[in-house]
Amino acid sequence: MITVNEDRLINNIKELGYIGENEVHGIDRWFGSDKDLEAREWIKSYWTKNLKGVLHIDAIANLWMKEETPNYKKPIVIGSHHDAVPCGGKYDGAMGVLIATEVKQTLQEKQYSLKHPLYLLSFTGEEPNPFNVSTLGSKVLSGRLKQQDLEQLKNRENQMSMTEAVKKAGGDITLAHTARINKNEIGAFIECHIEQGHRLEDMGLSVAAVTAITGIYREEIRLTGVANHAGTTPMKERQDAFLAAAEVGLALEKEAGSYINGEVVATVGCFQMLPNEASIIPETVTLTIDIRTCENRFVKELLKKFTKRIDVIAEGRKVAIERKIILDQKSMPMDCMVMDAITTGIIKSGSPKVLLNSMAGHDAANMARICPSGMIFVQSVNGKSHCKEEYTKPEDIIKGANAMLQSVLYLDEIME
Amino acid sequence: MITVNEDRLINNIKELGYIGENEVHGIDRWFGSDKDLEAREWIKSYWTKNLKGVLHIDAIANLWMKEETPNYKKPIVIGSHHDAVPCGGKYDGAMGVLIATEVKQTLQEKQYSLKHPLYLLSFTGEEPNPFNVSTLGSKVLSGRLKQQDLEQLKNRENQMSMTEAVKKAGGDITLAHTARINKNEIGAFIECHIEQGHRLEDMGLSVAAVTAITGIYREEIRLTGVANHAGTTPMKERQDAFLAAAEVGLALEKEAGSYINGEVVATVGCFQMLPNEASIIPETVTLTIDIRTCENRFVKELLKKFTKRIDVIAEGRKVAIERKIILDQKSMPMDCMVMDAITTGIIKSGSPKVLLNSMAGHDAANMARICPSGMIFVQSVNGKSHCKEEYTKPEDIIKGANAMLQSVLYLDEIME
Repeated sequence: MITVNEDRLINNIKELGYIGENEVHGIDRWFGSDKDLEAREWIKSYWTKNLKGVLHIDAIANLWMKEETPNYKKPIVIGSHHDAVPCGGKYDGAMGVLIATEVKQTLQEKQYSLKHPLYLLSFTGEEPNPFNVSTLGSKVLSGRLKQQDLEQLKNRENQMSMTEAVKKAGGDITLAHTARINKNEIGAFIECHIEQGHRLEDMGLSVAAVTAITGIYREEIRLTGVANHAGTTPMKERQDAFLAAAEVGLALEKEAGSYINGEVVATVGCFQMLPNEASIIPETVTLTIDIRTCENRFVKELLKKFTKRIDVIAEGRKVAIERKIILDQKSMPMDCMVMDAITTGIIKSGSPKVLLNSMAGHDAANMARICPSGMIFVQSVNGKSHCKEEYTKPEDIIKGANAMLQSVLYLDEIME
Repeated sequence: MITVNEDRLINNIKELGYIGENEVHGIDRWFGSDKDLEAREWIKSYWTKNLKGVLHIDAIANLWMKEETPNYKKPIVIGSHHDAVPCGGKYDGAMGVLIATEVKQTLQEKQYSLKHPLYLLSFTGEEPNPFNVSTLGSKVLSGRLKQQDLEQLKNRENQMSMTEAVKKAGGDITLAHTARINKNEIGAFIECHIEQGHRLEDMGLSVAAVTAITGIYREEIRLTGVANHAGTTPMKERQDAFLAAAEVGLALEKEAGSYINGEVVATVGCFQMLPNEASIIPETVTLTIDIRTCENRFVKELLKKFTKRIDVIAEGRKVAIERKIILDQKSMPMDCMVMDAITTGIIKSGSPKVLLNSMAGHDAANMARICPSGMIFVQSVNGKSHCKEEYTKPEDIIKGANAMLQSVLYLDEIME
């Protein structure tokens, strides 16, 4: 049976992992950074040196390796993203790009000819970044973000415009519409990614097919109390935005925790307080809540209960609450045909069949809007991700790559 | 009976209140800012134009208006501070400096000659400021801060050294020891200040003598959990520094609130979270707690109960807690002779006698270490301070000034 070149794949992950490595061995390679550009150069150079096909950088600077379409068949697209969160790991995203690369390189070496063209894709800006937009590349491909949306965006740290950042990466947002892909232009999309949880590790398994990608609902909540002197204001007379925010955070935890099978998670990730002086009672707190579940109805249900709770908090503490929805991405089921090809690929490559949902967002959720899409998860050690401790064992990476290879071969067989 | 010039005093408060006024009509005049320098120039210019005596700027840039000592008597010193918290009010500090100025100007005009020399004093950096040190000027006068301490300090916002900031204001920290005042070099110190609470307003009164100044105990608490993915980390497995900090804040409120007569107040004023990303579980929170009471034993008692609570929180949430004491200022009783002079002055100027403690810290607490000290409180409308809504009615300011005038006259009589 055809298998990937193990040493080459592991070495490529090591090489790309040097780009953006910081002193504590995390990876600093967020979209808009110089290290993101350096990673792009590495990938483009590797693809053009080692693979047949045509390098293409679309208007949002997604990297593509395309090939001629034999018999006018729709392409199978495989890939992931090359950017990372600040001080992130070297597997989240990069592993998927390099597994896709290895699959194509293996097929080329072994002179396998597929019925469908096989495209590689490395997405622009999948992770949260200083432009406050994630899954940027796939949002543009799927038409969720357009030129006029992109023109509003700015790097909050250095004020660089999105226009400039995309230009540096080789794109051109005035042509964003040209990057958009019509429904069913692509035959299928598969993304291989680390699990970012420890369900596979707990089961002692290496790979899984993904059933659905979580919905993500996000609000910015602003609590406004009254700034006053920390000494002269009696405890009973305070309108303390911090204490109200503390109760709001704990109420959110309680409501999410009431889904005893873990179907819902919720997080307060950003928190800013003003005036932020030791001797002044906090006047305002601005915080984000992030609610995730693969069951869209749970979001509505949880929000109803949460709203009741925070209204009581606001009244009790005489604090005003303003809420703004900043993201409302519904959960996205993966395509049945692709899921079937992946489970077949997993079994053919020697691993047992297992299905998992994804509680992290992925480019595949956007791709699923325009073509049949699926994902392969590979075990994460201790379930860690988005941190320097993120790690996936070489043997699991190889299993993931061979599952991807078999999935592509099987898809090529069954697809029209 | 001799009384102050009402219009002049109110006008001076208005004039000084323009310096640092921002768009929302708060005052931005923290130590180290250009507006602090501008306020100093206003005061120096007013004093030298309108008062006899010698302007003196000591090594920590406190502003003094001194005069020759007749009969080698120790001086009576009156004053307050001219700086303000960010977006603060125009009465906290400035009113006391201008009441002291008005008292001296009135005595000079009416050709009253006192047995004791009367000095004016406007302190450097009384309020919290970007150098993280409050009551700066009086700490140096009383020997609580020395050259080597001052050399460590830096503006956290623009990295300016304390050396540079003091130099700009006309001082020289290499000579800090020369600003220090020996015990009993000064006959008495009186500071007139807004109450910053609403006890006087509740009683329908204008002025009070202060019995004691609150102790202030401050810690920086750092909670360290584990940063992880907001989607893929089940609620039960989180080590969320934010949720732990929320519980810590609420526990502090509960313990302070258990002193039912309001003898203790406690506040979480600063709060910073990392990595502060919507999709990442918070790894660290650094917060300050500020505990105030005029009864030193309550601090110890409260800390014991608070420590028990937060140890339980830390264990339950698997979060590490580090604590650092950043201020431990004991409560300071005012001097009996000065308090007596003030109550006499209040009665002579036509107001009823009333005694209050101070839950805010003041320069007078440091002055009390080196000389007999006292304070006069003037009513704050709605008890507001450290905010743009801070206000004291002209009629109460006049009553405060006349009480100060009579207190000085009475002190001059009874003092050796």
